[in-house]
Amino acid sequence: MSAVDVGVALLGYGTVGSSVHRLLVESGDEIERATGHRLRVVRALVRDPSKERAFPAGEGVLTTDFAAIRDDPRVTVVAEVMGGLDPAGTYVRELLRAGKPVVSANKQLVAREGAELFAIASAKGVQLRFEASVCAAIPVVKVLRESLVVSNVHRVLGIVNGTTNFVLSRMERGGTYAEALAEAQALGYAEADPTDDVSGADAAAKMAILATVAFGSRVGLDDVETRGIDEIEPAHVSAAAELGTVVRLVGIATLVDGAVDVRVQPALVDRSHALAAVDGAFNAVMLQGDAIREITLEGPGAGGIETASAVVADLVSVVGTSGTGFLQNDACWRELPRLDPGAWRSPFYVHLEVADRPGVLAHVTSRLAAHDVSVAQLVQHLRDGEATLDLVLHEAAQGAVARAAAEIATFPEVLRRPFLAPVISERPL
Amino acid sequence: MSAVDVGVALLGYGTVGSSVHRLLVESGDEIERATGHRLRVVRALVRDPSKERAFPAGEGVLTTDFAAIRDDPRVTVVAEVMGGLDPAGTYVRELLRAGKPVVSANKQLVAREGAELFAIASAKGVQLRFEASVCAAIPVVKVLRESLVVSNVHRVLGIVNGTTNFVLSRMERGGTYAEALAEAQALGYAEADPTDDVSGADAAAKMAILATVAFGSRVGLDDVETRGIDEIEPAHVSAAAELGTVVRLVGIATLVDGAVDVRVQPALVDRSHALAAVDGAFNAVMLQGDAIREITLEGPGAGGIETASAVVADLVSVVGTSGTGFLQNDACWRELPRLDPGAWRSPFYVHLEVADRPGVLAHVTSRLAAHDVSVAQLVQHLRDGEATLDLVLHEAAQGAVARAAAEIATFPEVLRRPFLAPVISERPL
Repeated sequence: MSAVDVGVALLGYGTVGSSVHRLLVESGDEIERATGHRLRVVRALVRDPSKERAFPAGEGVLTTDFAAIRDDPRVTVVAEVMGGLDPAGTYVRELLRAGKPVVSANKQLVAREGAELFAIASAKGVQLRFEASVCAAIPVVKVLRESLVVSNVHRVLGIVNGTTNFVLSRMERGGTYAEALAEAQALGYAEADPTDDVSGADAAAKMAILATVAFGSRVGLDDVETRGIDEIEPAHVSAAAELGTVVRLVGIATLVDGAVDVRVQPALVDRSHALAAVDGAFNAVMLQGDAIREITLEGPGAGGIETASAVVADLVSVVGTSGTGFLQNDACWRELPRLDPGAWRSPFYVHLEVADRPGVLAHVTSRLAAHDVSVAQLVQHLRDGEATLDLVLHEAAQGAVARAAAEIATFPEVLRRPFLAPVISERPL
Repeated sequence: MSAVDVGVALLGYGTVGSSVHRLLVESGDEIERATGHRLRVVRALVRDPSKERAFPAGEGVLTTDFAAIRDDPRVTVVAEVMGGLDPAGTYVRELLRAGKPVVSANKQLVAREGAELFAIASAKGVQLRFEASVCAAIPVVKVLRESLVVSNVHRVLGIVNGTTNFVLSRMERGGTYAEALAEAQALGYAEADPTDDVSGADAAAKMAILATVAFGSRVGLDDVETRGIDEIEPAHVSAAAELGTVVRLVGIATLVDGAVDVRVQPALVDRSHALAAVDGAFNAVMLQGDAIREITLEGPGAGGIETASAVVADLVSVVGTSGTGFLQNDACWRELPRLDPGAWRSPFYVHLEVADRPGVLAHVTSRLAAHDVSVAQLVQHLRDGEATLDLVLHEAAQGAVARAAAEIATFPEVLRRPFLAPVISERPL
């Protein structure tokens, strides 16, 4: 095999960038066997070339000048591993306009500016790949775009945020949300400012990208109904356990009668469901479609080397499909309307704290019935004159359940705001 | 987008073949968006063109003459969906020699004749893809070859046979192996002659292919240490449950110090392990490697439309990488020795039925100790003067455990042949 060198440029040379370089060097033989090419980093954009690096970039590779990358004819493909929206977005646009294919690990950039970037890539006939932007090393984008081309995927379920998964798993062993979060921070599973994770924003960006690819229609960040995990209390976790379920932050993207619904929210997941088994900081994505029934991918959803391995896989794929016209589009070939969020249907769980008075139960259930919502299961606990009611409701429209809950919240015997969450199960609870 | 037609030929037009045709027709737009090409079935080889078909092949497509496919210049790529070794093997060889890329769904052919077929494909510079030959719609071959190029996968664990998975899951609810098998047959999960499944032969062929791709070294069917599930008794299943595990037929491929070990055998899988959650007839494959830690893929491992969807994905990939030199090799780039099976290390489970006499336990454990095998956990049950001993052993070489067990089997107080199985768990049992 006579190898032709392919020049690679990196935007950014931090943990991910230097790992990409290391993988390209150390696995050069494997890549050459697969592609017939030797991929070499010829340029890397950094702010400070004099900084010490984990894996040195080599003589003359580091530069502070973006134009030196964009205009370098040796650069055949570029990996954007710098993060942030600006200047990363500007750079990616300029590179695509200059006819250079780009591989991006930038979730926020792809989720927010994907539409524009893909339009440029498509017009220029170059690829924009973004495997590393969602769930690090889990090859869900490749599987969706290449293996499931004809599968009509209509539902994507995901545990796509390791921090919240760790915190919620931890709460099962007792303790409050604040305690579990503190432990996650101490162990390095949560950042000092965990807002992006616990608010669901990180998961929302990933679900926007996955829904876009799965359904072929642009889903923006604003299209994702998002709730975080900071409202989760020990009472919810223990009630969930009594029902044979666990509380998890779940991303749910659904195609219903030609309309799209994407949401990220705490849900009760049946213990026998594949998503309940996802451990600590791991991620999992379940894809449901016509020809495949259901395919689940699970693995580490974060990490420098894991992300770098996905970037390298994308580089290999760009080289391996170069000039064939393959995937030279934004995967969005239709414009589907958003589903009215209130019309989204699911079984639901409701947690109520009420005064222990005669007639409360009848009051609650008759109000649910008034909205055509029926109760599948009910657990009542008494303590010091107060009662908790944990209800599992049969599948119903979210709007009807929310309206009923809002009315129930105004009952004088209801002590606190009801807690609502969808239930994910393949069996009746 | 101006579509260029790509002529596809099918070898075989049964359940899978006609489903491939149907998917190409019904998802023509999706395929054209991805590849820039419209894939059309122009020829299909059958024995009886007059037979009624689920999805008609179209005027002039069916032929009984293989040469009419091999020599048809309109045929750009061929899907072999006829099964069997002969004449399928001859046809695939002739097609590759004629420079036509081939996609095969034929597990036995790829496992037995892969080395020769890939040598021809490589020499001719055409692709041979085989996603559908392993676990139907689960895209494990693509993920291994394209996403995990630089991951140095060193262990593959698989539940790759749905029939045995169903039978063993069923035995957890009580009943004998024969009863569970009969139920599987009644429900269509097992064939009238289930030998290929219950003996482990079907799983062995899949593991041979997966190990070959994962380790880059040819693994033949004869290289797979294979045991079936017909020796599994209710006592093993209930003892496994007491230990917090389930009995499953597991494929285990390991790269140990540059040597390869591939085996298919009943194992005790910890309930909290991802493979224990695999439902009934589903398959799952766990890939462990350097950069990715661990990625698990789960989905339907069989079925006509599921297999057809994998064939179509391969056809799309052939078109999408055409002329780039991508994956024009057999994935085998080294020749690794087989590990001596006795040197393979694992924690083990041993089930013994013994006479309830003083000193039995000391006798058994001292014989294990003589082989440097130590006991991690022991459960003893008494019934009518007989005792069962269920032992979990710390990690040890299989040879040492087998020798100790063979010696223990000769003890006068041991009533039946000991049952041995590896234990798969990420926690100490």
